[in-house]
Amino acid sequence: MIPDELAIIDRYFRPLAGKGAFGLRDDAAALAIPADQELVVTTDMIARGVHFLDDPADTIAQKALRVNLSDLAGKGATPLGYVLSVALPPDVDAAWLEAFADGLRKDQRRFGLELLGGDTIVVPDRLLISVTAFGTVPKGRMVHRSGGQPGDELYITGMIGASGAGLAVLKNEPGPWSHFSKRERDFLVACYQVPEPRTALAPALIKFATAAMDVSDGLVGDCDKLAAGSRCSAVIEAERVPLPPGLAGSRDAELIARLLTAGEDFEVLAAVRSEKAARFIDAAKRVDVPVTRIGTLIEGTDLTKLVFEGIPLSLSQRAFVHGRVGTAK
Amino acid sequence: MIPDELAIIDRYFRPLAGKGAFGLRDDAAALAIPADQELVVTTDMIARGVHFLDDPADTIAQKALRVNLSDLAGKGATPLGYVLSVALPPDVDAAWLEAFADGLRKDQRRFGLELLGGDTIVVPDRLLISVTAFGTVPKGRMVHRSGGQPGDELYITGMIGASGAGLAVLKNEPGPWSHFSKRERDFLVACYQVPEPRTALAPALIKFATAAMDVSDGLVGDCDKLAAGSRCSAVIEAERVPLPPGLAGSRDAELIARLLTAGEDFEVLAAVRSEKAARFIDAAKRVDVPVTRIGTLIEGTDLTKLVFEGIPLSLSQRAFVHGRVGTAK
Repeated sequence: MIPDELAIIDRYFRPLAGKGAFGLRDDAAALAIPADQELVVTTDMIARGVHFLDDPADTIAQKALRVNLSDLAGKGATPLGYVLSVALPPDVDAAWLEAFADGLRKDQRRFGLELLGGDTIVVPDRLLISVTAFGTVPKGRMVHRSGGQPGDELYITGMIGASGAGLAVLKNEPGPWSHFSKRERDFLVACYQVPEPRTALAPALIKFATAAMDVSDGLVGDCDKLAAGSRCSAVIEAERVPLPPGLAGSRDAELIARLLTAGEDFEVLAAVRSEKAARFIDAAKRVDVPVTRIGTLIEGTDLTKLVFEGIPLSLSQRAFVHGRVGTAK
Repeated sequence: MIPDELAIIDRYFRPLAGKGAFGLRDDAAALAIPADQELVVTTDMIARGVHFLDDPADTIAQKALRVNLSDLAGKGATPLGYVLSVALPPDVDAAWLEAFADGLRKDQRRFGLELLGGDTIVVPDRLLISVTAFGTVPKGRMVHRSGGQPGDELYITGMIGASGAGLAVLKNEPGPWSHFSKRERDFLVACYQVPEPRTALAPALIKFATAAMDVSDGLVGDCDKLAAGSRCSAVIEAERVPLPPGLAGSRDAELIARLLTAGEDFEVLAAVRSEKAARFIDAAKRVDVPVTRIGTLIEGTDLTKLVFEGIPLSLSQRAFVHGRVGTAK
């Protein structure tokens, strides 16, 4: 038995509300944006069985928020607030809601944003969460996918493939992780369940990147998008791409291709002019965000060339396609 | 077989995108707000079987948008744009998507707003739509639920109960509508499927209302909320409340109570000081929004008194509660 909407809002969501939300006691939020800033808006919806499995409620909340924060980060935006809509099935109980709100609370504090409003509905079946997140950038300074130029160096934050490997672990799919220790497998699962949005890097992206985006549908496919947005092509040197512990250093072309096209990395891919690269790396270091050079934008309109020590790698797919009916659960 | 997300965005949603959406070719939208304005944000999620039945796709799109526009209207905000997330089940095909986009297109033109972004996911089961809508008000002038004072006159736009009666028609629930002509029944169903957000009234609300909100959970319960927000009580004179054709003039207390607590009217309830009432009515007339005085804010903290020609009406429920598991479909 789940409490009704008003009781849920009172008990779990009202304590999370920010100033512009009027205690969730009105029908809308008000947001005043400083005159020299503009608002950056992004929205993502996640559903059980598609974007998460039977994960703990707090990590589901964190994932719902963080996939949006990752978009903001890739655009150079500083988080401000979010609205949250949840479709709750009957198996959701008070303990679940408590943990869900707790996940939101932790991340609001960590990433400096507030709940501004929302909607709670009851559905007979599938748990589903929709977040629209707001951030700010100095006026006209949002970092786009366009703007990259041939010769720009390509950087990636963190590592690639950990989330995809984590999903494979959860789904008991065979792979090198089958022989990993529990601790190593737990690490991969945590990467899938709770991505690490690179919000701290936003100011450096505004200052030094010609183009950027967050990687959510696989590195190679998203690199295609950034290059296309910038009317360029790209080369990724696969041996440079940081892979998760236990998989790093692999020379298994099939595995590397799989990790570089797996989805949900939620890392930032950025193009930086060579003359600014040292300062970009330095700025990233100052905010503790690991960045690695993985390739280069080049002239042309071809899809991204993926090479390993100079040898082209072939790919069975370029991007991770989510939620084909029945893929998960 | 439904097309994949990228094909859906290309074909159906890109043509709807506004300037700040960068052709839906980036990961976020950018919104610059004039320095003398602030942003009003609201969000609502609707699901098949809960908020709509097997309605035509264009009316589903319109309803998803309009329930949000109604919130903006009640706050005095002028529509600016929206983001849209859709969870699509396998029975959705190209014709459905075409009609859905067409419903959005019509309403974007009519209400002057643009698509700013969105997310499309595929789910095995339930069609669900989440909209976050944006409007603007002059800084600090959003109309709140608070602000009403004892003595303020209460006004409602349009009529009350048509949507609830329309749902009863669709669900074949017995009532006076059972004897209505097809045309009368179709009118009620249309009120349920495609509400009429009172966006044109927004400037008059800012100018003349002390408090306002849109009526989505039933007139009586929402009047409770406005009165509580204003630390007042309220009296509704039921005989003044405009009811739909065929039901107007009814003296059936049970029917009247049912209509005044039915949900999804999406009309605006406003409190106006008596000395401003004539100018408010005049301003509403100039924008062709029918408004009717239905009661008064009074001192106290009791729930709304509903009276019919001076005699109290009793209520079995005060508000329409949506989506208790299994209520619809």
